[in-house]
Amino acid sequence: MNFCSNCASPVEFKTPPGDHLPRFVCGSCGMIHYKNPLLVLGCVPEWQGRILLCKRAIEPRLGFWTVPAGFMENAETLQAAAARECYEEALARVTIGSLLALVSVTGASQVHVMFRATLDRPEFAPGPESLEVRLYDEGEIPWDRLAFPSGEFTLRKYFEDRAAGRENHHFAELSSRLKS
Amino acid sequence: MNFCSNCASPVEFKTPPGDHLPRFVCGSCGMIHYKNPLLVLGCVPEWQGRILLCKRAIEPRLGFWTVPAGFMENAETLQAAAARECYEEALARVTIGSLLALVSVTGASQVHVMFRATLDRPEFAPGPESLEVRLYDEGEIPWDRLAFPSGEFTLRKYFEDRAAGRENHHFAELSSRLKS
Repeated sequence: MNFCSNCASPVEFKTPPGDHLPRFVCGSCGMIHYKNPLLVLGCVPEWQGRILLCKRAIEPRLGFWTVPAGFMENAETLQAAAARECYEEALARVTIGSLLALVSVTGASQVHVMFRATLDRPEFAPGPESLEVRLYDEGEIPWDRLAFPSGEFTLRKYFEDRAAGRENHHFAELSSRLKS
Repeated sequence: MNFCSNCASPVEFKTPPGDHLPRFVCGSCGMIHYKNPLLVLGCVPEWQGRILLCKRAIEPRLGFWTVPAGFMENAETLQAAAARECYEEALARVTIGSLLALVSVTGASQVHVMFRATLDRPEFAPGPESLEVRLYDEGEIPWDRLAFPSGEFTLRKYFEDRAAGRENHHFAELSSRLKS
């Protein structure tokens, strides 16, 4: 950030009076421009025991596999965001289920929230951000070709819980959005 | 938003190619400025069965009572944010416990995440954003003087679960951050 989005004057990065962290502050109109963590919403879509994954058509991690997930938009609920991302990336309609994972990605200032989900019908196809979309049995999951550590954490907890017959939620802290 | 924070040129509010929602787009350098939901983190701090609430010293809802909560900062975890807010507003150190509430406040484009917590010791005092901080028995909670509906939802679920001897998490969707 170089300029104030309110008045176009240069901003300074300094701690405002009464605050405890530096912010971008306009030297002219005084507006404080906060930067806060972004929410990434996703789900693990299941159909008859198999899991829908997407092969990424975009960077980062082009060509690697991921659960459908993306940035939450304004004015939607957590569940609506997770379902929308699944439709955009896999053209698949899902019913969102229980909460599965909450991952604080501190190095990227993101929070990833993942739900269990069920495909409404076995219809899916690559959206614009996907090269390929397919259902995987647990034994076929391409663990070494997964795009993001939060997705790997999510899938591992999904299968652990499924084997144990429970639907818990799980916290993790990751320093980086990508593999370190 | 009036100007591009990258190059200070005027922005337009329009849907970028390949997107499905309007964004602030710079007419000069082309940067897209996304606006996404903000995370508000809080907790219900307990000490020997009583709950710590804060009387707000700032608007909105000056003079009304709230659980300690506020905007999550970059590079912290959900739990760290909830504990930090409790220290800032009530000068109280807490140990964060189980997940209690996830509230999508669609009208404000916020997501409120609330945890159970326990005071590390019975020491607290008003921080700069609080007029008063005190412990309340369940029967004394000032339900008609609570600041925010998400806090009321959080407290009601807290007491319901406590009476039932469980620690569930609960979802809600609220249209407004303030009472309607």
